[in-house]
Amino acid sequence: MSGGALGLRAAGVTGALGAAGVAAGAHAGLAHGQEMDAGGHEGMVGQHGGQGDVDLSKFDPSKFLRDFYWGEERQEGGRTVREYELVAEDVEIEVAPGVFYPAWAYNGQVPGPTLRAREGDRVRVTFKNRGAHPHTIHFHGIHDANMDGTFELVGPGQEFVYEFDAEPFGCHLYHCHVPPLRKHVEKGLYGAFIVDPKEGRSEADEMVMVMNGFDTNFDTENEVYTVNGVAFHYQRHPIQIKKGQPVRVYLVNMTEFDLINSMHIHANFFDYYPTGTKLEPTEYTDTKMLAQGERGIMEFTYGRTGNFMFHAHVNEFAELGWLGFFEVEE
Amino acid sequence: MSGGALGLRAAGVTGALGAAGVAAGAHAGLAHGQEMDAGGHEGMVGQHGGQGDVDLSKFDPSKFLRDFYWGEERQEGGRTVREYELVAEDVEIEVAPGVFYPAWAYNGQVPGPTLRAREGDRVRVTFKNRGAHPHTIHFHGIHDANMDGTFELVGPGQEFVYEFDAEPFGCHLYHCHVPPLRKHVEKGLYGAFIVDPKEGRSEADEMVMVMNGFDTNFDTENEVYTVNGVAFHYQRHPIQIKKGQPVRVYLVNMTEFDLINSMHIHANFFDYYPTGTKLEPTEYTDTKMLAQGERGIMEFTYGRTGNFMFHAHVNEFAELGWLGFFEVEE
Amino acid sequence: MSGGALGLRAAGVTGALGAAGVAAGAHAGLAHGQEMDAGGHEGMVGQHGGQGDVDLSKFDPSKFLRDFYWGEERQEGGRTVREYELVAEDVEIEVAPGVFYPAWAYNGQVPGPTLRAREGDRVRVTFKNRGAHPHTIHFHGIHDANMDGTFELVGPGQEFVYEFDAEPFGCHLYHCHVPPLRKHVEKGLYGAFIVDPKEGRSEADEMVMVMNGFDTNFDTENEVYTVNGVAFHYQRHPIQIKKGQPVRVYLVNMTEFDLINSMHIHANFFDYYPTGTKLEPTEYTDTKMLAQGERGIMEFTYGRTGNFMFHAHVNEFAELGWLGFFEVEE
Repeated sequence: MSGGALGLRAAGVTGALGAAGVAAGAHAGLAHGQEMDAGGHEGMVGQHGGQGDVDLSKFDPSKFLRDFYWGEERQEGGRTVREYELVAEDVEIEVAPGVFYPAWAYNGQVPGPTLRAREGDRVRVTFKNRGAHPHTIHFHGIHDANMDGTFELVGPGQEFVYEFDAEPFGCHLYHCHVPPLRKHVEKGLYGAFIVDPKEGRSEADEMVMVMNGFDTNFDTENEVYTVNGVAFHYQRHPIQIKKGQPVRVYLVNMTEFDLINSMHIHANFFDYYPTGTKLEPTEYTDTKMLAQGERGIMEFTYGRTGNFMFHAHVNEFAELGWLGFFEVEE
Repeated sequence: MSGGALGLRAAGVTGALGAAGVAAGAHAGLAHGQEMDAGGHEGMVGQHGGQGDVDLSKFDPSKFLRDFYWGEERQEGGRTVREYELVAEDVEIEVAPGVFYPAWAYNGQVPGPTLRAREGDRVRVTFKNRGAHPHTIHFHGIHDANMDGTFELVGPGQEFVYEFDAEPFGCHLYHCHVPPLRKHVEKGLYGAFIVDPKEGRSEADEMVMVMNGFDTNFDTENEVYTVNGVAFHYQRHPIQIKKGQPVRVYLVNMTEFDLINSMHIHANFFDYYPTGTKLEPTEYTDTKMLAQGERGIMEFTYGRTGNFMFHAHVNEFAELGWLGFFEVEE
Repeated sequence: MSGGALGLRAAGVTGALGAAGVAAGAHAGLAHGQEMDAGGHEGMVGQHGGQGDVDLSKFDPSKFLRDFYWGEERQEGGRTVREYELVAEDVEIEVAPGVFYPAWAYNGQVPGPTLRAREGDRVRVTFKNRGAHPHTIHFHGIHDANMDGTFELVGPGQEFVYEFDAEPFGCHLYHCHVPPLRKHVEKGLYGAFIVDPKEGRSEADEMVMVMNGFDTNFDTENEVYTVNGVAFHYQRHPIQIKKGQPVRVYLVNMTEFDLINSMHIHANFFDYYPTGTKLEPTEYTDTKMLAQGERGIMEFTYGRTGNFMFHAHVNEFAELGWLGFFEVEE
């Protein structure tokens, strides 16, 4: 585990976040402790909503949340084939209002699109590398060795077609597997990959949440943490859900640099299905930690209206952006 | 993850712990490695018992261990209501012999009292803030949005009454949720919250263990680790249990700054119930890690007499105070 | 958590690994980020195989992998007794080609031999300390207090006989328990301890994998990570397995300094049995994290031929040596 000097880090963050102030406030609080507590940071709730926003026309986590990329569906020889296209690009993204990060991204967004298929579907992913570095796509799933994204580096300007059967059902992920691994992951080349059971799952308001971080000052530590790519997005734009409506969250951890991340929902509990590969939950809790590459499915229903927070139960991550709200309505 | 310079940290610890020597010895060993190993630190067992103790008249972890705060029980409209009082105070606590920490604490102690109720009981907690900063109580449980301790900051001198039904049954926790979250948690505003199933649990020698740490030199790292608030307390004062007697430990992790903590018992195994929300255990092991906010129930029985160690299987934490003994007698 | 300056650490690693270049390349990539990415590090796969090897005549992880130490079996009073000998030594080991580490080791190797017995067997371990420091053997298992390796320090030149019944069945471990714990563990005094169920387990190609790290520049951080003691060994020497053949991996985490480690297999999923103490798996996944002292059993079958990577899904660890391959053949 590396650890830069805290002073350097704080300086870098302040510089990176600048006048945006959002996470800067939280981070300064982290660096200066009690001093901040007496300052303007008290009453975090709502504070971040009034200080501008990222350019949502470029990437809107509220749309991403429930946007499942099923690909182009066709029938070949009696079976369903789904064709997807993923393009690696070097792109500047806005990870907090006014805070830009030079990402490497699938389809220009971090996280990449949430690929989705049904168990047994044939998955065909055309990967085009329009970035400046070689990349691949490594799927967490069962497939041939030459479809693993491990050996076949796809150079700038090149293409590769990954093809395999969607198995096993569950909540999975994909990411670039070119070394240095840390670099290719931290830069943003990852996304969720959901495989539905053949028999489907029960009806629910489904959404995906990818936990990650951004090293905005390049010191191999994260200064910004998010779920779905933008700090505090779901605080500025709470997730609308219905009272009594089952919710299903596909939760994936792709945080680099930190050994774990975690998810806590307020005033409620969820059934948890590790990796989503079994139909019976193993836990009923309100807090769950995941290492990088671990993932699972959360199912819960709010029986009350109101605004309910969710966030990392790593307080540092929550205060640096990994915090949002469910707005539960009748 | 922040990481201060080790030199600074070691210096801070030595300064903070001074002549107490308890954790200072362990930490010096950590900083200087082999040098310490040849020194006086060999034979840790029992060493700490002979170097004084904290003022147990102020807070005694041996009493805290089995002290469950059921509140004032009354009947209202045919149901059981339990009324509790929690008071936030700024108080200096002794976290190792001679090592004092300026805490923010519920009822003057860290961890706060272990609140306990039965599933379905009405819980009514009068919270009085006698500290210098705004605070709240956020319960991990199911309740209304305005009873969540998220929005309603309770200023110095103010009061607030939290009221909700005790659900779900399990091993839960409560903590302050005022930002900066890290500050309000690290200062000590947390405790366990146990909800018994309606049908109760099997007879056992029940105890609570809250894992935490203290940043005694204010560098956003912990210099002292404990279970139940005092370094090496249960080494100086082993927990008395009976051979053949089932033991049930409500285990909660509220360690700030470190991503996980863990529990290992010696020469025995325990059934583990994550979050305590189901009546069947999911694991049978002797070592379990928890992220902050995670918790569970351990059940075990010692079939032999003698002294058996338990501690974090993070060696650094064990050596800085998170280590104790069960003394098993006929 | 301690954290040395990154600059110091990188320097130390470069110094320690020198011309070996293996992990040095990965680590430099870690320190310098994008710069490395454009350098010679792209195409990690296979790179490490061509740069020499450790002296396999001294310790060969390929042999260690499937080498189970059942002890000398004899019958005493109608029951099976197994007699083992473990000798602690101060020995220099080669943890990466050309990278030597001054270990304290059981039987001259890190990890120590994989002890194995059947549930209910009497286990008798003669421990001889030929090192320069006092040591013990602490078994994770059920046994008497005076057989725990906690109290009876075995001084240099001394012996001690540990004796207990093998229980419970599962995947366990042993390690020295002399303080400072961190020192005695980081130096290499640990190994796996497997107890088979009385009824045995299903037929499989069985192997052990102990995840660990080495602090080659003595800064209380690991510069080299391995499974079974040698960085990138199973990349230079892939593990041969058969297509369609069930594989069972006894996985143990004894990594010091880092709070967790993890295991990810490519293009396949495994049934996971935490601690191996139950006969039903709890998870079906491809990625699992473990804290120090945690362990479990993985079962999987490759249905395809080819080379499949496995490694920590902590990218830093993977790039510093904790990465290998299964070579699946007809």
